[in-house]
Amino acid sequence: MDIIKPRTLSGFMELLPAQQVFFNAIMQKLREVFSLFGFAPLDTPMMEAAEILLAKGGGETEKQIYSFTKGGTDLALRYELTTSLAKYVAANYSALAFPFRRYEIGKVYRGERAQRGRFREFYQADIDIIGDGSLDILNEAEIPSVIYKCFTSIGLDRFVIHINNRKVLSGFFDILGVRDAAGDVMRAVDKLDKIGADKLSAMLCDDLGLSKALVDEIIGFMTYQGDPFDVLDRYRGRSELFDRGADELASVRQHMKGFGVPESHFAIDLSIARGLDYYTGTVYETMLVDHPGVGSVCSGGRYDNLAEYFIARNLPGVGISIGLTRLFYILNEQNMLNDSVMSAPADALIIPMTEDLSYATALATTMREAGLRTQIYGENKKFKAKVTYADRLGVPFVVFLGEDEITSGQISVKDMATGVQTTASASMLIAGICGKIDAMRDRPPIQA
Amino acid sequence: MDIIKPRTLSGFMELLPAQQVFFNAIMQKLREVFSLFGFAPLDTPMMEAAEILLAKGGGETEKQIYSFTKGGTDLALRYELTTSLAKYVAANYSALAFPFRRYEIGKVYRGERAQRGRFREFYQADIDIIGDGSLDILNEAEIPSVIYKCFTSIGLDRFVIHINNRKVLSGFFDILGVRDAAGDVMRAVDKLDKIGADKLSAMLCDDLGLSKALVDEIIGFMTYQGDPFDVLDRYRGRSELFDRGADELASVRQHMKGFGVPESHFAIDLSIARGLDYYTGTVYETMLVDHPGVGSVCSGGRYDNLAEYFIARNLPGVGISIGLTRLFYILNEQNMLNDSVMSAPADALIIPMTEDLSYATALATTMREAGLRTQIYGENKKFKAKVTYADRLGVPFVVFLGEDEITSGQISVKDMATGVQTTASASMLIAGICGKIDAMRDRPPIQA
Repeated sequence: MDIIKPRTLSGFMELLPAQQVFFNAIMQKLREVFSLFGFAPLDTPMMEAAEILLAKGGGETEKQIYSFTKGGTDLALRYELTTSLAKYVAANYSALAFPFRRYEIGKVYRGERAQRGRFREFYQADIDIIGDGSLDILNEAEIPSVIYKCFTSIGLDRFVIHINNRKVLSGFFDILGVRDAAGDVMRAVDKLDKIGADKLSAMLCDDLGLSKALVDEIIGFMTYQGDPFDVLDRYRGRSELFDRGADELASVRQHMKGFGVPESHFAIDLSIARGLDYYTGTVYETMLVDHPGVGSVCSGGRYDNLAEYFIARNLPGVGISIGLTRLFYILNEQNMLNDSVMSAPADALIIPMTEDLSYATALATTMREAGLRTQIYGENKKFKAKVTYADRLGVPFVVFLGEDEITSGQISVKDMATGVQTTASASMLIAGICGKIDAMRDRPPIQA
Repeated sequence: MDIIKPRTLSGFMELLPAQQVFFNAIMQKLREVFSLFGFAPLDTPMMEAAEILLAKGGGETEKQIYSFTKGGTDLALRYELTTSLAKYVAANYSALAFPFRRYEIGKVYRGERAQRGRFREFYQADIDIIGDGSLDILNEAEIPSVIYKCFTSIGLDRFVIHINNRKVLSGFFDILGVRDAAGDVMRAVDKLDKIGADKLSAMLCDDLGLSKALVDEIIGFMTYQGDPFDVLDRYRGRSELFDRGADELASVRQHMKGFGVPESHFAIDLSIARGLDYYTGTVYETMLVDHPGVGSVCSGGRYDNLAEYFIARNLPGVGISIGLTRLFYILNEQNMLNDSVMSAPADALIIPMTEDLSYATALATTMREAGLRTQIYGENKKFKAKVTYADRLGVPFVVFLGEDEITSGQISVKDMATGVQTTASASMLIAGICGKIDAMRDRPPIQA
């Protein structure tokens, strides 16, 4: 038979079992945190009619979309989760209670050029709160408090949530009389982190033809080093939009304290712009303190209209997205997976050394009833092969079941970490293993 | 703006939030059970190079595959999880310890004709145990014990796992001297449940040209009503293959008792054939006692060679697959979702009735720290709208926070099920809600 080389497509992450355990632990923590904040889980299809996914027009993204035809229908794979949410909310509008809070953790597809750390199939973990007609500013403060809880729950501590408000930026450009250039300026300012203030300044002068004085004022505002509310106060009273944005920023900061986000973990950052057309209020970016080069690992913001393509209703919302596959790739690459987390597929392995396996199957069943993840090694191999299997699996406890053990009811268990072998009754041993396994559980998957 | 009708593709299940809770609870239970038996979680890509997915040649299935080209590469969406597993095991052979136990719960795609209860995107929940060169019969007994634990864990009780052995069937046809017709006979026999013994008999006589006596013997064997080992014993000693199969069946039955599967929940059923070329040992089908018409909800068996297309190694295995989306559809349709399960996205809703929300945010944070899924209703709406929101959400506890409550520190909570309102300190109330919520947790999602 001809052998076909078993390969996985480039840009598609496929993990070995031990790594998958970490990835799943992160996903599970996120689910728990999202639930704590009252978000309902959704699971929308990976595939939609092309007209749905392309409703809002694609631009750059459109080229990356996987689209094809089957049975005469134009189909496309989702490239983010927001369009699916918009469709869902529009289609189920009357069945939902607003504000509607949902989370979805799912795979999305982008046919990007393959490069290290870029994925064509990747998980996004999204939360959004959708209002009907209006949505209180409180929600814009709650979203970053979910980010804080998510990251600390998985074991990450050294991150800062950068927060700005698009009304502040738009109002500021109104005040300076450069509203028409606002889009170009914001796109340029988005690069501040990468290119630095000097290059940005040159760009704004040369490419956009702004005066040196104006550019200095813009950069001075956005990179202000003191309390941001000092610089905000300087511009108050000159644009209603600006003042509203500044008030919103103040509310968000105050509510975030109520939600228990320490000041060390968020910063009002007047240089955060995040795209142009979509966001209309608070915007977020989350930076890893020790790895600024990777950019934001969780971003989002407030928008005015989720589903205008699908329903004639004003549905404002606020949401964020974590690029989970990329985040995992970075954490793994930076050796931040917590090596005290047990990644073996079983807590205990039973190695029977008798022909009759009835004692082994009964013991395995009892151990599983006690909540221990248990395997029996039932293969007819030499003793050495059996022990090698236990080693390769990385299983923390091995139970040896010979004739003597079965007759006496005194069973031997080896703690693989210490090498210590203990002999006791089955029930005592199970209680002992349970105690040790419980202590290993719920360790955060990431170590800072 | 033109409105595009928000529609989901036909054949794609998309659930409302309350139903999604049940679906997720079932998935979570399956993950827990699979883990208890030492299966490692895998998550393989939804998409593969077409040559990988079509390696084993498709037949009927091939027509249903979603395939397309992107950037000059022929791609296809997976239509089951086994080919992905074969590729994975072949590609990672040297990194894995055998027997390799993995589970995967993931979406697969089949462009079937749309009809009620048939899905084009659906979840499969698969477990497989893959040996390297050999695999002990013990594993063939352990697999149905996982099925038993899965179904009882989600709350299903009225099911029976039907078990047969392909060596028995092949050996039996050898004994009768109809080996050449074995494939046709087994395909016909697979229809026994649907068409009954009389029609099957006519089919075997007319279509396959078998004698009436032979057909009677075949049907007599397969539908034998007594202890199946009685009829097995009658044919022993006439085919080595048959004898081996009968021994395996006996082993499987014995080990299953060790694994704690009650006799009420499995049956040796000599009429189960399950396809033709793939399976070589024990085969399984799982029937819902009260809904025989839906057919098997969990099937699988032993095969000799998982990955012969991808690696020149003998990798025998045994596995089963649950068609999760279809199973959920049936359970929902049969009103078997457990209505005592809480499907609200939050345990408690805080309704602030003051301008200042700082007490509400602090209380929400404390409740979340205590593990309560908590929402604040922060919208500036009339009292009635706030209560309507609580009702529609189905949230079991509502906390009313007015000026008086905040000043006195005595907070009112309404138990929405009983209508009873209680007033106490925040910490007492949180403890009280936690107690009641804990009692509601971990109810099985299905009621028989």
